[in-house]
Amino acid sequence: MTDAEALIRCITVLHGPNLNLLGRREVALYGQTTLAEIDEELARRAAAWGFRIRCFQENGEGELVRRVHEAAETAGLLLNAAGYTHTSVALRDAIVAVGIPTVEVHLTNIYSREPFRRRSLLAPVCIGLVCGFGPRSYYLALQGLIDHLKDRMA
Amino acid sequence: MTDAEALIRCITVLHGPNLNLLGRREVALYGQTTLAEIDEELARRAAAWGFRIRCFQENGEGELVRRVHEAAETAGLLLNAAGYTHTSVALRDAIVAVGIPTVEVHLTNIYSREPFRRRSLLAPVCIGLVCGFGPRSYYLALQGLIDHLKDRMA
Amino acid sequence: MTDAEALIRCITVLHGPNLNLLGRREVALYGQTTLAEIDEELARRAAAWGFRIRCFQENGEGELVRRVHEAAETAGLLLNAAGYTHTSVALRDAIVAVGIPTVEVHLTNIYSREPFRRRSLLAPVCIGLVCGFGPRSYYLALQGLIDHLKDRMA
Amino acid sequence: MTDAEALIRCITVLHGPNLNLLGRREVALYGQTTLAEIDEELARRAAAWGFRIRCFQENGEGELVRRVHEAAETAGLLLNAAGYTHTSVALRDAIVAVGIPTVEVHLTNIYSREPFRRRSLLAPVCIGLVCGFGPRSYYLALQGLIDHLKDRMA
Amino acid sequence: MTDAEALIRCITVLHGPNLNLLGRREVALYGQTTLAEIDEELARRAAAWGFRIRCFQENGEGELVRRVHEAAETAGLLLNAAGYTHTSVALRDAIVAVGIPTVEVHLTNIYSREPFRRRSLLAPVCIGLVCGFGPRSYYLALQGLIDHLKDRMA
Amino acid sequence: MTDAEALIRCITVLHGPNLNLLGRREVALYGQTTLAEIDEELARRAAAWGFRIRCFQENGEGELVRRVHEAAETAGLLLNAAGYTHTSVALRDAIVAVGIPTVEVHLTNIYSREPFRRRSLLAPVCIGLVCGFGPRSYYLALQGLIDHLKDRMA
Amino acid sequence: MTDAEALIRCITVLHGPNLNLLGRREVALYGQTTLAEIDEELARRAAAWGFRIRCFQENGEGELVRRVHEAAETAGLLLNAAGYTHTSVALRDAIVAVGIPTVEVHLTNIYSREPFRRRSLLAPVCIGLVCGFGPRSYYLALQGLIDHLKDRMA
Amino acid sequence: MTDAEALIRCITVLHGPNLNLLGRREVALYGQTTLAEIDEELARRAAAWGFRIRCFQENGEGELVRRVHEAAETAGLLLNAAGYTHTSVALRDAIVAVGIPTVEVHLTNIYSREPFRRRSLLAPVCIGLVCGFGPRSYYLALQGLIDHLKDRMA
Amino acid sequence: MTDAEALIRCITVLHGPNLNLLGRREVALYGQTTLAEIDEELARRAAAWGFRIRCFQENGEGELVRRVHEAAETAGLLLNAAGYTHTSVALRDAIVAVGIPTVEVHLTNIYSREPFRRRSLLAPVCIGLVCGFGPRSYYLALQGLIDHLKDRMA
Amino acid sequence: MTDAEALIRCITVLHGPNLNLLGRREVALYGQTTLAEIDEELARRAAAWGFRIRCFQENGEGELVRRVHEAAETAGLLLNAAGYTHTSVALRDAIVAVGIPTVEVHLTNIYSREPFRRRSLLAPVCIGLVCGFGPRSYYLALQGLIDHLKDRMA
Amino acid sequence: MTDAEALIRCITVLHGPNLNLLGRREVALYGQTTLAEIDEELARRAAAWGFRIRCFQENGEGELVRRVHEAAETAGLLLNAAGYTHTSVALRDAIVAVGIPTVEVHLTNIYSREPFRRRSLLAPVCIGLVCGFGPRSYYLALQGLIDHLKDRMA
Amino acid sequence: MTDAEALIRCITVLHGPNLNLLGRREVALYGQTTLAEIDEELARRAAAWGFRIRCFQENGEGELVRRVHEAAETAGLLLNAAGYTHTSVALRDAIVAVGIPTVEVHLTNIYSREPFRRRSLLAPVCIGLVCGFGPRSYYLALQGLIDHLKDRMA
Repeated sequence: MTDAEALIRCITVLHGPNLNLLGRREVALYGQTTLAEIDEELARRAAAWGFRIRCFQENGEGELVRRVHEAAETAGLLLNAAGYTHTSVALRDAIVAVGIPTVEVHLTNIYSREPFRRRSLLAPVCIGLVCGFGPRSYYLALQGLIDHLKDRMA
Repeated sequence: MTDAEALIRCITVLHGPNLNLLGRREVALYGQTTLAEIDEELARRAAAWGFRIRCFQENGEGELVRRVHEAAETAGLLLNAAGYTHTSVALRDAIVAVGIPTVEVHLTNIYSREPFRRRSLLAPVCIGLVCGFGPRSYYLALQGLIDHLKDRMA
Repeated sequence: MTDAEALIRCITVLHGPNLNLLGRREVALYGQTTLAEIDEELARRAAAWGFRIRCFQENGEGELVRRVHEAAETAGLLLNAAGYTHTSVALRDAIVAVGIPTVEVHLTNIYSREPFRRRSLLAPVCIGLVCGFGPRSYYLALQGLIDHLKDRMA
Repeated sequence: MTDAEALIRCITVLHGPNLNLLGRREVALYGQTTLAEIDEELARRAAAWGFRIRCFQENGEGELVRRVHEAAETAGLLLNAAGYTHTSVALRDAIVAVGIPTVEVHLTNIYSREPFRRRSLLAPVCIGLVCGFGPRSYYLALQGLIDHLKDRMA
Repeated sequence: MTDAEALIRCITVLHGPNLNLLGRREVALYGQTTLAEIDEELARRAAAWGFRIRCFQENGEGELVRRVHEAAETAGLLLNAAGYTHTSVALRDAIVAVGIPTVEVHLTNIYSREPFRRRSLLAPVCIGLVCGFGPRSYYLALQGLIDHLKDRMA
Repeated sequence: MTDAEALIRCITVLHGPNLNLLGRREVALYGQTTLAEIDEELARRAAAWGFRIRCFQENGEGELVRRVHEAAETAGLLLNAAGYTHTSVALRDAIVAVGIPTVEVHLTNIYSREPFRRRSLLAPVCIGLVCGFGPRSYYLALQGLIDHLKDRMA
Repeated sequence: MTDAEALIRCITVLHGPNLNLLGRREVALYGQTTLAEIDEELARRAAAWGFRIRCFQENGEGELVRRVHEAAETAGLLLNAAGYTHTSVALRDAIVAVGIPTVEVHLTNIYSREPFRRRSLLAPVCIGLVCGFGPRSYYLALQGLIDHLKDRMA
Repeated sequence: MTDAEALIRCITVLHGPNLNLLGRREVALYGQTTLAEIDEELARRAAAWGFRIRCFQENGEGELVRRVHEAAETAGLLLNAAGYTHTSVALRDAIVAVGIPTVEVHLTNIYSREPFRRRSLLAPVCIGLVCGFGPRSYYLALQGLIDHLKDRMA
Repeated sequence: MTDAEALIRCITVLHGPNLNLLGRREVALYGQTTLAEIDEELARRAAAWGFRIRCFQENGEGELVRRVHEAAETAGLLLNAAGYTHTSVALRDAIVAVGIPTVEVHLTNIYSREPFRRRSLLAPVCIGLVCGFGPRSYYLALQGLIDHLKDRMA
Repeated sequence: MTDAEALIRCITVLHGPNLNLLGRREVALYGQTTLAEIDEELARRAAAWGFRIRCFQENGEGELVRRVHEAAETAGLLLNAAGYTHTSVALRDAIVAVGIPTVEVHLTNIYSREPFRRRSLLAPVCIGLVCGFGPRSYYLALQGLIDHLKDRMA
Repeated sequence: MTDAEALIRCITVLHGPNLNLLGRREVALYGQTTLAEIDEELARRAAAWGFRIRCFQENGEGELVRRVHEAAETAGLLLNAAGYTHTSVALRDAIVAVGIPTVEVHLTNIYSREPFRRRSLLAPVCIGLVCGFGPRSYYLALQGLIDHLKDRMA
Repeated sequence: MTDAEALIRCITVLHGPNLNLLGRREVALYGQTTLAEIDEELARRAAAWGFRIRCFQENGEGELVRRVHEAAETAGLLLNAAGYTHTSVALRDAIVAVGIPTVEVHLTNIYSREPFRRRSLLAPVCIGLVCGFGPRSYYLALQGLIDHLKDRMA
């Protein structure tokens, strides 16, 4: 497999602010699965479909923007922007600039929480959205993204 | 397997108004897959996980409410309420009354369309939401729902 | 008593979507009284004042509109439109078209619930409103309606 | 009957600003019944159910707040706050502080009048609401309140 | 004339909720012409231009959606959705799905009535709108629709 | 002159909260004229046109409502409700109940101040409004009111 | 025919700003028909029904107001106010002042364009509205206006 | 008296769109006094206080702006901008640019009419406002303006 | 110490509606400290810094306005306006008129409660705000006010 | 150089209402440069780049629309619509109809002034915007427009 | 004292963007006290109550989020989020995740500044708020926080 | 030239998030010019006017705030805050704190894009704004800034 082929089959997974605390804080709400465990499971599932993943967690908006830029050379983006989902024009612009298929993920159902969480600035520039299934939101979103990429490769 | 067990392992799939036209109208936007084909694929996948599905399509709000009532005896609900998503308090009340786990599905990314489609009256009473992946939205949502049900049975 | 007299002393009671589940679902919130029991009690009280009632429950907006049309030949309307209260212009137009005195009823205090329940499209075309007393809302509303009708007959 | 029992069976009736003019001004809109006549009828009906009432009319917001405080030692509150219904956070706080069951009453259907009358700051902290039946709104509300109190005593 | 030609020259006329009462209720506002008389006059005029019409009146949103689906095989749609005009996303989606030229009609000038009647969810997906001329709104709309269809046939 | 005639030629002048401080506080903004001086000048001018005035200043909303009630037996009302202008439904209702011609007065131009001062709940039930001329606002308003009353007597 | 009779059978047609460019600019959107051609066709059709028309195009709001004033002596007004439709209180007041039956016309469907075009200040004071049929909007509107006038003459 | 003195004692009176119809149209609402009669009365009163007036009526926004510019050489401005009151930034800018004391006048109480008439773009840049007294609004406003000017001369 | 000096070192403490119930009602929310105990503690602390306090509780808006007027002769104002915080223009005007340094206090964090409590009409005219610390809010606010006054005396 | 070439190299400069007062009124805010001086400088700079300019100032909306129409035969438009910027749909439509590159200019930074100046109806149909630099806004805008035109000619 | 005890008695102080400039820029508005001086005074006061503090200033949202995470091991958080107060969902989520008592501080009274500063996303998840007292806001807030912590330790 | 003089003649150029991708991504929309090329051209032009520039690109809000702080020692700031333009109170505060003349730049016309881009939090604290001319927006803005600085030096 060449390098170019490798990148075509690589997916970036990006976790936004506070997600590093997953499994250690607010376990009643978010469960006991840690981010490392989610990343592992994602890697395992991606591999089963012939894909690799690169995972990053960032608390800063600028760092997330940079990670999206770096994702340009991979095939797709799985993004849980957490608190920036509702306010970041910069992240939205980055997704549009990079132009790779992006799927929005949330652990909780953001539409059953506070009103300010019901507006996603990112959703309109993503291909799809999965939310409310806890860690499984990631796995379903990965599957949706990979199916989408395979279609385009076909 | 007893009848009660059968119901515990049965999932209701409910398609809202205009979805009967799927695959025959606006194929450029919605693709060529028909509703029958989606139902078939859902049945095939559900069976693989040990579940049965019952599928209905209704154009009327009242009929959908009645179908939700009937779903009370099944284990979960997969609901694409289409145009009623944004306006139906009656459907929302029905979901709450029946009280079974419900997942909201949309073929398209409703957040990248007209503003009046960005409000879902149903999302706050569903466990999760999948949208934007075309027919695959249904398959991912089914998987999310079944995983959720298995957790509760465990 | 002639037929015409009979109709003059007949009141239509109309229950909207999901009310068929009353007493069987969400009993913690709505109590254990069923719709049949409410209708019975309404009939008993109406009879005591010399009136008969005709009761219907419908889940569909169109069916409710038709029931309002049929109510045209009766003396008054007791209406719990449930979820349609907040969204149905069609029901409002039906009440205006039919022109008989109408009283709006709700089991719960709709003003202490979600914001979208605070707007009633029907209230402005009804003579009065009773809400928050559970099944007793119906009985108080019936009394208010009958007193109103007796005034007009006098 | 002890004093404590007497208070348990006493209901406060509170009329807000301008209601002292009832029956003397705007009779075309509000009818010819005076406030004294309403109070008398309320007393008569309450007595029939084994209750006494204490009636007050106040034009000032502060006076009404004080009357609500005094009502703390009675069993329930029948409140027509008139113009303060739509603006008084102080009255709302008083009702919550005192914590006795309160029913909101209005002579007219406030939802068929000016838009600023459609918001009630009090309704969310009352058990129920009756409006639109003229003086009868009071009688229906009294009945609803007494039935509610009897349930709790039972 | 073949069947296909017949359909090409057939127009669906769809009347929404409460219009069955036309000419019998609120005659001061809507006039004494009945729906049957309007349909007759529409048929007469259509025939003069070489067209046939199929007329339906429905009170339910779901029934209207179904009627729009059936209209797919005719050449155009004349639609007075009445109360659903302002709230029905489902009807809007049906018109878009079916894709035949649609003209919105209202008997009264909806812009000189209550504010909630000033928003039409349907107008943006119709080719044109005629309102305010009473029954004549239908005749003008029919003429506009037929002229439009003839242009496309030319 | 009989008593009745006297009342017909008597005008109530009502000053709202904080106006007792006039001429003693914020003189840079409101000038050095005191309320007593304004009342004196109003009396002098009214007398010149054959009218008497009765002046009151109240800081409480309830007291103002009572003063409006008492004004019922006079020919007209000159009202500077100050801070209650923007929030008091009770005062508005009092003016409507009493039904005598009322003119709204403000020392400053309320439309060139904070946004919350731009809404007057009272203006819609007054015959006219004068603001921005300092103490002269009162004198112009008095003249407008008296001219209006004389027309009606004529 | 007397002069008075002539005026009774004369209709003013008023075209607002930019309509002088019709047929010469943006032909893809508005078509190739010029304003002169529309006026000619209107004259021809009016004549067939026994009416004459007087046509004017103005770019200024004040000029349009003056033209509406002059229309006072004719039987009716056909008005395409173009850009002033959404902002001109002055034109609205002129229509009300003159008091002759007015029909609002638009070439395009203003409800399928930018949000600021969806509000018409004029519609509430017109008898009816026709839009979306291109030049034919004018012809349909003329017919609606003349039918309306004939009714009144009858 | 020198020319400069003459201008110092000259006031511009500016009437906006449709006011030329005063006394001839909508007499039930606006009365039978014509604009000429108002101007005459204003001249008579101004003369009594040692002032001259110059009166203009314009239907166009641009013409009104020009008239305000010309008013720069006079001592003050009495302005009834009618329909432009609520929409004209250009007029507001003209008043600020010219910088002479301006009083806003309206025949009717604009706060008891349609909601869009409740916003005045001009009020914040005028010294005062008089409305609701019919033609007398002008006379009171003139008096207020002249008193204001005399203060400044003193 | 002279009288003038005494007043310079006196602070007014003003408690708004319902605060007389403190420590006796809703103790779960507001704690068991009574208003008298708070006043005592405030007096004790003020004395330690060389200040005296005068404390008042009022349920009426007008009474509070009068108390603010009386505070004019003291050095500063500690104000918990409770429910009037969000609605009283009159209180705001009183604070501005009196012109002494004022600190706004709330027992609870008003920004974590109902939306209508998030707007304070008083905050913009106070020097500072302390909320959320229960009775300690008062003590912190007193300290802030006294530090502020000492700065100004220095 | 032919006439056509001449027009290709001609730019229309359009100044809106009140700009004729530039340099003579409000010099503290707008500076002492007159409109004539700006036009002269624009001509000088345009000439240096091989362009001619035609300058007009209009106070009326209709006149500005007409000037935009006349600009159709020139290469570009420099437009300071002043007060009409925020309200004129007619001007916006004129710019779109004429279709030549247009640059929006303002002397002041409209975004640091009153809220109603923050909305520009014209900006969305212009290629660019320069504001806040006083007279230099024009010079920078001219340069931007000419650079743009040269690109298109290249 | 063990390490655990040390942390229990340690408080994190967090200063948001631009606060590093304190005392060096805008001294007229914010005073001449530097951040270092504030931190020193906070340390001194904390020590007097038996507490230690750890102080950080960050300009980035992500850095602040990280600092909040690190604060998890301390007893409480004093937070002046400056500009992020009004926009950062990420910071809000961090405070909730970490779950230690947090007090919001502002130097100025944010409610008397621009409207966009009146919304605090953080206030609803903090125990209390102190603002408007300059550097003293910090000292009062520290005292409030420590009192709160001592209560919980007791 | 001394160091101080050097700084006086130095301008900071600040590019916000995603601008590092310029010329490499979305070339159809933003053109092929890279950020390096823009910086070079800016340096060249600045030099021609006797100025030096210092250019930075940052993706993080905090980094941009720090860069603005560092700009304090230079003469002016050219700022394209990209996505932070619409949301960053922190950047706004930084500009105000630093107090050097700042010009806002955008490549595209932000007023012809999505609604959330039409609000600039920065514009009110900048001296001017240039947008819509692509890379030339920078050059025009630089010229405007330098002209402004030269005026102040003069």
